[in-house]
Amino acid sequence: MSTYAVTIAYDGTHYCGFQVQPNGITIQQRLMEASIDLFGDAVTVTGSSRTDAGVHARGQVIRLTTPKNISADKLPMALNVRLPKDIVAISAYEVDDQWHPRYQPHVKTYQYHVITAQMMYPWEQDYAYHFTRELKIDRMTSAAKLLVGKHDFNAYAAAKKSVEDTVRTIQRLELIKTERGLIFEIEGDGFLYNMVRIIVGTLLMVGTGQIDEQQILASLATGERDLAGPTAPAKGLFLYEINYMA
Amino acid sequence: MSTYAVTIAYDGTHYCGFQVQPNGITIQQRLMEASIDLFGDAVTVTGSSRTDAGVHARGQVIRLTTPKNISADKLPMALNVRLPKDIVAISAYEVDDQWHPRYQPHVKTYQYHVITAQMMYPWEQDYAYHFTRELKIDRMTSAAKLLVGKHDFNAYAAAKKSVEDTVRTIQRLELIKTERGLIFEIEGDGFLYNMVRIIVGTLLMVGTGQIDEQQILASLATGERDLAGPTAPAKGLFLYEINYMA
Repeated sequence: MSTYAVTIAYDGTHYCGFQVQPNGITIQQRLMEASIDLFGDAVTVTGSSRTDAGVHARGQVIRLTTPKNISADKLPMALNVRLPKDIVAISAYEVDDQWHPRYQPHVKTYQYHVITAQMMYPWEQDYAYHFTRELKIDRMTSAAKLLVGKHDFNAYAAAKKSVEDTVRTIQRLELIKTERGLIFEIEGDGFLYNMVRIIVGTLLMVGTGQIDEQQILASLATGERDLAGPTAPAKGLFLYEINYMA
Repeated sequence: MSTYAVTIAYDGTHYCGFQVQPNGITIQQRLMEASIDLFGDAVTVTGSSRTDAGVHARGQVIRLTTPKNISADKLPMALNVRLPKDIVAISAYEVDDQWHPRYQPHVKTYQYHVITAQMMYPWEQDYAYHFTRELKIDRMTSAAKLLVGKHDFNAYAAAKKSVEDTVRTIQRLELIKTERGLIFEIEGDGFLYNMVRIIVGTLLMVGTGQIDEQQILASLATGERDLAGPTAPAKGLFLYEINYMA
């Protein structure tokens, strides 16, 4: 029995999210099929993040257990020849069989891509949110600072997957101006369901002047979902990187 | 009768190049169909560059003549609702009916994207050449300088579309290091068939040590195609920008 941590990139456009489910093709299912083809039936695939339909990953990390051992260096390519083009194993290393991608301490970085130019290029359409209303970036940057740190993010969680404890810590939240628009980069040790997309939707409303700093403070204080902004579309979101503590 | 210069971006992956031809769907054909749908039959569409199958454009420019007048500001969106997702009209302005996208003096910029990282991300696969052999960038930069200026580029032209005069001027040829690899940026007032792709193929061979500066000089002096490198794949090439002199 061997256990590997494998970094996976994927284009989420044509999948019903990461996690196996009865009504559609998922990333995890394709990873299972490739692993079974490579190692036989007795494999398990566990993801670090259950990304939603349309969400992309540059650095998802899975735990892969197999009955056979293979050099960790050779594992990515062995999987890639068995995976569809839009899922790619980037790198792998062998881990202790107790290692778990969700419970092992880690920091996750998400990127959210926004195109503010009048027209989107064809190669941007599946990978960014097109938002052409005028944005006051300085206001967004100030408001973003209010969200950094340890807060009750209940107002920034989709209702349908509520958890008991909605306190999370955002370690970093940056707006990066690009030639074509904006990238939000957000780092933390855990996120609620849709939290990154709701934060982005909220900060865009701050940029247009529809939400002010008082309302952000109130959303954190009261936990009322209505005080935060809408959920930004899935296609702009990338699970960018997961760094595990040694 | 109205005449417009329209900047067009496209993903060339699923097309048999720009120019209308009997055996496959082309960008020009889709632009014609959209224009006819908008204006009726009496339209003409002429491109500045006849890009090959798989080649992309960020800034192709077409001349569109129509029997009806429309505000140039409204033209891109009117075309976009009639075009497939992978062809986008970016901007337009009205021009004199004598204006021609090939004969009007202009400078063209191409970009060629190379990924040198071990694995390509899914969103890179159609838009870059994957080249993982070790490259000596300083050698490539020196060799690139030999190609800048006015030269007989006969060695850098595909044989099947030979023209009489193979002298061209490269105004700029830069290698830009990116997080994921390299971008070649090349600017000139005219290019021979496959010239950019052969230059890139040659400079990559310089990077691996298979072609040296003496051979580059010999290729320019003799015009022998064999002295230059292979034609780099179409999918890495972008017609990036065309600047017309006022």
